[in-house]
Amino acid sequence: MPDATKDVPNLRRQEDGFAWQGVERLAYKQDGDAPFRDVSRQILFSRADLAGELRYFEIGPGGHTTLERHGHVHGVMIVRGRGRCLVGSEVSEIGPLDLITIPGWTWHQFRAAPGEPLGFLCLVDATRDRPVLPTAEELAILRATPEIAAFLDG
Amino acid sequence: MPDATKDVPNLRRQEDGFAWQGVERLAYKQDGDAPFRDVSRQILFSRADLAGELRYFEIGPGGHTTLERHGHVHGVMIVRGRGRCLVGSEVSEIGPLDLITIPGWTWHQFRAAPGEPLGFLCLVDATRDRPVLPTAEELAILRATPEIAAFLDG
Repeated sequence: MPDATKDVPNLRRQEDGFAWQGVERLAYKQDGDAPFRDVSRQILFSRADLAGELRYFEIGPGGHTTLERHGHVHGVMIVRGRGRCLVGSEVSEIGPLDLITIPGWTWHQFRAAPGEPLGFLCLVDATRDRPVLPTAEELAILRATPEIAAFLDG
Repeated sequence: MPDATKDVPNLRRQEDGFAWQGVERLAYKQDGDAPFRDVSRQILFSRADLAGELRYFEIGPGGHTTLERHGHVHGVMIVRGRGRCLVGSEVSEIGPLDLITIPGWTWHQFRAAPGEPLGFLCLVDATRDRPVLPTAEELAILRATPEIAAFLDG
């Protein structure tokens, strides 16, 4: 279980924009085989004595997260910019303070608008399974819906 | 374990200000004996399949939460307005996007500035213990520090 913020001070001030004292801007994914574009990850709260974690993800203009699914749930709050998301078979425009729930085993992807970054908080269980990518067959099923195909093509 | 947002739609849009579709503005406390002033509570994410919860609290201008402590940890992000907080024996000015950790069994209170509300997200374990109030003796010990006494007197 990660414990990235256990020994940090009780107050970590915001620095310029969406950055915080002592909070590193990390690579979105550790492994290189999941497709994504221009995404960073900052771990805001992660401690051995907390069952949930809160992270901040930021997608650069026109960028996107990985299309994936997993057993664990995401609770997302948009805090910066605009974009679109796919949750299951629903494509939605999203903007500041909107709340998005990703239930377990639901395909999802976030895409920033062309002209601005998309930043969001993501609540997740500290203990969780790894995401899986769609097979070619699963991707074909998703793409059979024109709205989803258009979303995936950016 | 509460499960207030299990059957809600996957997308809940922000409405005017810090309000969301289908998210009720609740009383801060259910029981009436804990002192506080002008605080509301909104449950943003709380589900049986999520180990953490995310809530939004808003304190009206000049209002304050209860001075209390408990075994569970709080992970707090300020999202609206300015104010001050007490964490243990530290009094700090706080503003937008600042991150505050309340470790277990640490006295804490949030106070909104006189002229504006203070709104914050609070990450907490779904399973948690109940807060306790300071005894007269514990309060006297806290008040022995002039900066804390001035904070508690608003």
